[in-house]
Amino acid sequence: MSRASTLPVALVQMRCGEDPDANVAKALSMAREAAAGGAKLVCLPELFRSRYFCQSEDSAHFALAEPVPGPTTEAFAALAAEFDVTLVVSLFERRAPGLFHNTAAVLDGRRGYAGKYRKMHIPDDPRYYEKYYFTPGDLGFRSFDTGAGPVGVLVCWDQWYPEAARLTALQGAEVLVYPTAIGWHVEEKDALGEAQHDAWELAQRAHAVANGCYVIAINRTGFEPDPTGKGGIEFWGQSFVAAPDGRVLVRGPAAEEAILRLDLDRAAIETARVGWPFLRDRRIDAYEGITRRFGTD
Amino acid sequence: MSRASTLPVALVQMRCGEDPDANVAKALSMAREAAAGGAKLVCLPELFRSRYFCQSEDSAHFALAEPVPGPTTEAFAALAAEFDVTLVVSLFERRAPGLFHNTAAVLDGRRGYAGKYRKMHIPDDPRYYEKYYFTPGDLGFRSFDTGAGPVGVLVCWDQWYPEAARLTALQGAEVLVYPTAIGWHVEEKDALGEAQHDAWELAQRAHAVANGCYVIAINRTGFEPDPTGKGGIEFWGQSFVAAPDGRVLVRGPAAEEAILRLDLDRAAIETARVGWPFLRDRRIDAYEGITRRFGTD
Repeated sequence: MSRASTLPVALVQMRCGEDPDANVAKALSMAREAAAGGAKLVCLPELFRSRYFCQSEDSAHFALAEPVPGPTTEAFAALAAEFDVTLVVSLFERRAPGLFHNTAAVLDGRRGYAGKYRKMHIPDDPRYYEKYYFTPGDLGFRSFDTGAGPVGVLVCWDQWYPEAARLTALQGAEVLVYPTAIGWHVEEKDALGEAQHDAWELAQRAHAVANGCYVIAINRTGFEPDPTGKGGIEFWGQSFVAAPDGRVLVRGPAAEEAILRLDLDRAAIETARVGWPFLRDRRIDAYEGITRRFGTD
Repeated sequence: MSRASTLPVALVQMRCGEDPDANVAKALSMAREAAAGGAKLVCLPELFRSRYFCQSEDSAHFALAEPVPGPTTEAFAALAAEFDVTLVVSLFERRAPGLFHNTAAVLDGRRGYAGKYRKMHIPDDPRYYEKYYFTPGDLGFRSFDTGAGPVGVLVCWDQWYPEAARLTALQGAEVLVYPTAIGWHVEEKDALGEAQHDAWELAQRAHAVANGCYVIAINRTGFEPDPTGKGGIEFWGQSFVAAPDGRVLVRGPAAEEAILRLDLDRAAIETARVGWPFLRDRRIDAYEGITRRFGTD
């Protein structure tokens, strides 16, 4: 494990077009640029290989899926090995005929494929019809021991669940990485857009505070039309890194592609956790109700 | 239960002096003013009956404790009955010789004493030596069905624990109330003050988002010297109410007493929870690790 005092990270915020091969080529190119620039952990946005196909329920989209590990992880594994860089790569996983997951693979430098996380919390809202495509993950919450240190991987909708962040941090993760595809319904952006984005950012900053760790959220950008009608999603970009005290250290632009680079100070984790020792005082004798749905039913 | 479409609430942010009787008299007077103004839920700050005595470990301070219910709840119960208002009253509870809790009582209008919550998470940091004074709560996390609707009560350090907010909300609480006594060490305010306050506020706003509920934090204000030496705590006031989407609806001043009044729109709870249906998708089959301390030890 690398225990250098700083961890150089990079977030690849990108626009995703119609052609999967072109998207992968762009992601590889941007990740290469980040790795060549010295990043030891490079994070890609959710399902970057394609448009965000969950805007509609269409069985043709299952053809986009692939095994994990599979062709795309192999392409990124080569890059990971070349620069000895850790990559978090979000993919549409085909596990068996009719069985698919929203998965993130970890490619750990010269050590290669380190494992995968299958998105545990699956949303289903207008234009985010993920329950049609993805079976909820069955690998639990995971921290990966990588050349970049212990990295926890979660995906998008997981962002809203403090349980997910906590369980991943309790496994040792010092950085929580959230590949994401979230945006505004163009019809409601004016009324709700700012409040929605604020809530999204603060929920994740709070995970950093509660767990004394870094949080990295990587979002796509650009407008993708709704294939079933008018409107669509304007992905809001604004990928960011939150420090263990909750401050936003870097935030990407809303409407443009960007590679965000930052050196994470590992000592800030210890400083935060010793300064406000939340982990010391958890009432693990009194949390069993977390596994209940609601009330006393 | 009142199911009016709005819930008028008031937060009593106050300075606490040397004389407990004077502090109680002031708290009663401010709460009366709030109730007379129409508030149906009035919240007082943590341990308002005295200076924040936990700045030092001194057995003489145990004399400040009283039974709950007891003399102070009786005084507030009279006020609660007069205006049929729900009050959240934080007290230093004497349970038995040598056994004390940091407790918040709920006085429910004409129905009187509704019960108490004993602070579950007890801090212990320089000038916050609470582990010396308070046994951790043994009543679990609680929502109270009151004339003001279902009200969850937590106390200060609990603010940092998403588990506490979640478990209280899962019992039906639509408003989480956090009596608080938090401030800056005057020696570190310049360097850390803003980041500390930001983290405190965002952690609680995130509870509102994650649970689709209101959060009310009531802090004391004013400087209280460290009885054992130089310096002391400058309580940072800034009591606030967060909406179910995480927005801060009202925020008190830092250095002055204030009664903050606000009408909470109950419909915003349903709107938030239906718009972003986090409760629907919780992975209760996968959260059992929350009851473990850390790692796999």
